[in-house]
Amino acid sequence: MEKSNYINLNPMGIENDSMQIISDELSHLNIPEELDAIVKRVIHTTADFEYAHLFEAHPDAVQNAKKALLAGCKIYADTTMITAGVSKPSMAKLGNELNCFVHKPDVIEEAKAQGITRSICGINKAAKDASYQIFVIGNAPTALVRICELYKEGKINPDLVIGVPVGFVGASESKQMLKESGLPYMIIRGRKGGSTVGVAILNAILYDIVKR
Amino acid sequence: MEKSNYINLNPMGIENDSMQIISDELSHLNIPEELDAIVKRVIHTTADFEYAHLFEAHPDAVQNAKKALLAGCKIYADTTMITAGVSKPSMAKLGNELNCFVHKPDVIEEAKAQGITRSICGINKAAKDASYQIFVIGNAPTALVRICELYKEGKINPDLVIGVPVGFVGASESKQMLKESGLPYMIIRGRKGGSTVGVAILNAILYDIVKR
Repeated sequence: MEKSNYINLNPMGIENDSMQIISDELSHLNIPEELDAIVKRVIHTTADFEYAHLFEAHPDAVQNAKKALLAGCKIYADTTMITAGVSKPSMAKLGNELNCFVHKPDVIEEAKAQGITRSICGINKAAKDASYQIFVIGNAPTALVRICELYKEGKINPDLVIGVPVGFVGASESKQMLKESGLPYMIIRGRKGGSTVGVAILNAILYDIVKR
Repeated sequence: MEKSNYINLNPMGIENDSMQIISDELSHLNIPEELDAIVKRVIHTTADFEYAHLFEAHPDAVQNAKKALLAGCKIYADTTMITAGVSKPSMAKLGNELNCFVHKPDVIEEAKAQGITRSICGINKAAKDASYQIFVIGNAPTALVRICELYKEGKINPDLVIGVPVGFVGASESKQMLKESGLPYMIIRGRKGGSTVGVAILNAILYDIVKR
């Protein structure tokens, strides 16, 4: 390894080189233009090309999300890893706010009292504020199921649900439920996904708007 | 999907069921006992069984890390996603502290002044405090290279370096460099890895000590 080849390299240079490698490997696929940057960023984040085949989006998802972000919507995430990873400079430019409530004392107490997951209580809390128009679920199938329920009951009407919980129990089923719910969705079919994947999807949309 | 099958399920129940599925799928592999829980947690976090073949550890890595954690060492991570994801209750029980400096004003300023990455400056800052005995690198190859350099210069002597940067430019090479450095390492060979993988490895070690 020639250390000098990258140790002082500009991080944006590394990212551009990476994206070129990804583009070359994906050139045989027909990814719709509006999803191209999203799929590539997910692969950039995971180094796993299978995601090109597992990613799926509602036809209105990208446009809805962009409108909501430009209007300064709030965003709810089910993990603090997601709130840590989403681009703060991009959100600041658009006036967005991103929160996760699963460690808040009122949510912890409510979950104990009701005998349900903190993830569900976090969604219930966000649902009370109509400015939460984008949800990013990277971990908890129960959170995704709760979003579908609240939508069916007419209590929320989000512009985008990024449903990418990873896991072996309930994850795949919860994503299928989201897909069939009528909500504008982006999902990773099957078991794969996770917080870094949720972050990659949202950051790709944000970067496309703010042109960093 | 029978919603009632999991929506009210205890999260530890979901986790135990998941671990059983993973154990069944890995039963044909001979994973050393002290690494078993680590490999399984990485797969639990990624739903990607390839990690069973990509994970590699120095023979002293687990024991060194446990000793350091039990002695209340500090931990340095290269991303705030890692600091968000590592188990705070476990660290609190052992008296560990986990930090990431890449967003600190002095680090940002230093990086600009010297024309190097913030990841390198973050490592330089941590290197000044000998109580940082564990490093978790999920993103920046430059951080991993810097750790190897400082070790060679005799300026740091960490008990464990979890080297799992993900990516297409420099990541694989930096992990190979760590492996050959003489440092007690845990790596994911090749392009894969990332913050969630780093978190999974460290949490598996912590959970094994605190027996949550």
